[in-house]
Amino acid sequence: MIELRGPEVSKKIKEQVQAALSAYDGPVPKLAIVRVGEKPDDLSYERGAKKKLESFGLMAESYAYPEEIGDDEFYRAFCKINDDPEVAGILLLMPLPSQIRTERIRERIDPDKDVDGISPVNMAKVFAGNPEGFAPCTAEAVVQILKQNEIELTGQRVTVVGRSLVVGRPLSMLLLKENATVTVCHTRTRELEKVCREADILVACAGQKRMITKAYVKKQAVVVDVGIHAEENGTLCGDVAYEDILDTASMATPVPGGVGSVTTAVLAGHLMQAALRQNKTR
Amino acid sequence: MIELRGPEVSKKIKEQVQAALSAYDGPVPKLAIVRVGEKPDDLSYERGAKKKLESFGLMAESYAYPEEIGDDEFYRAFCKINDDPEVAGILLLMPLPSQIRTERIRERIDPDKDVDGISPVNMAKVFAGNPEGFAPCTAEAVVQILKQNEIELTGQRVTVVGRSLVVGRPLSMLLLKENATVTVCHTRTRELEKVCREADILVACAGQKRMITKAYVKKQAVVVDVGIHAEENGTLCGDVAYEDILDTASMATPVPGGVGSVTTAVLAGHLMQAALRQNKTR
Repeated sequence: MIELRGPEVSKKIKEQVQAALSAYDGPVPKLAIVRVGEKPDDLSYERGAKKKLESFGLMAESYAYPEEIGDDEFYRAFCKINDDPEVAGILLLMPLPSQIRTERIRERIDPDKDVDGISPVNMAKVFAGNPEGFAPCTAEAVVQILKQNEIELTGQRVTVVGRSLVVGRPLSMLLLKENATVTVCHTRTRELEKVCREADILVACAGQKRMITKAYVKKQAVVVDVGIHAEENGTLCGDVAYEDILDTASMATPVPGGVGSVTTAVLAGHLMQAALRQNKTR
Repeated sequence: MIELRGPEVSKKIKEQVQAALSAYDGPVPKLAIVRVGEKPDDLSYERGAKKKLESFGLMAESYAYPEEIGDDEFYRAFCKINDDPEVAGILLLMPLPSQIRTERIRERIDPDKDVDGISPVNMAKVFAGNPEGFAPCTAEAVVQILKQNEIELTGQRVTVVGRSLVVGRPLSMLLLKENATVTVCHTRTRELEKVCREADILVACAGQKRMITKAYVKKQAVVVDVGIHAEENGTLCGDVAYEDILDTASMATPVPGGVGSVTTAVLAGHLMQAALRQNKTR
């Protein structure tokens, strides 16, 4: 089985970003990473994103707020970041604590700075197949891994396991745009193994540790694993039981070293696009 | 085979609208039907919608403009209708002539009056599974036909043939919300017959006259036909070869007398909801 390694895809995106950057005459594009609280997952993603952006020649700055911040206080702080001309892109780490009205933030974020596709404007564009919309980075990372590895999508059957607003739904729209025949499965799907075995390309974004075994995989299928979970011994694993599918799948992404590293590269690509767009409209 | 008749579903929606209307203390809700040009299909849909709304106790008024109207002139006229407090809902007949920037209209329409779900705000809500969003009437009509006939959707395999922004895409999102396992097919799908035969419920919205024959239908499947085409002899037909599937499907919608009549009932339902929403926020 061929391992679809994230860093190789990330490298190609890096080349594109650096080419755009060298032709760009504005200030170094800056991402604002907005975080409420100190969740270990958020901190780890933030560190990874910062490191990646800096290695691409871009900048990131953290804007951290206490877990118990009030709704209006956070909203005011968010508006200030959103309206700051020195901020080219905004990554809001979600979910936010329950006292904060997330909808209000989604509606307020400048669609041109919304590099992780949380605003209704970008959602509607992704839904409509309009390439100008920023899709959530993880969903786009899946498409990038497939395209950069020259895996045919037109006419292929792609099954997406998971229907979240962050991955499953936008990914299904991106795949339709690539002319794939798309099936979306979820917790209420009957005969999930059988439905998954119909897929030429299987994308696992269910959030269930190692649930995808070889019983779900058609011989020679391509498997993309969006999940990331901590094992008891401290190592990481995905939604796919990687060792189990080695003899069944033709290609698969490992965890770690798969989708995750491409996600932050896509984030960098979006930041560059955001900067170009804002530079043009100034 | 059981015929899934539109008028019966329409009647149930009528009861709901009339119950809401009798408890409503505002003026009779008015729909503005905005039309550019005189396309026969538009005129026919307009007549049908008006008749249906009036039979439900609601009102419709036509706002017609010449085919060659300028972009800015139409935009100004549209804004005036959009801002008129006596207009509770707007139905814009599409597509508009090419000189008109449709995107600008979509972005301008008041989401609370957008009863056919063309604004990015409503698209994003439908995409997110938020029931407050107005879905395009035809997409919702399909779901209404299934639900009002007590056809189970949870865990069922539903295949949608067609990926348009008006039907296929929003319908796939509405079906996901109903816990169906959804597959979207289109012109680039390979082995379309086979993929369709996996479906417990098959929805044809491909815009191809009588393309769905019994070869596409699993024994005892439910078939919903969104298509409407004129035959050379002047009669109407759908995307489904209705006579051909009689012995294969367990239930199917006829054309005419199927989805079309429910679509205008859904439009009436949306207009009532729009009026209630605006009455509340005044």
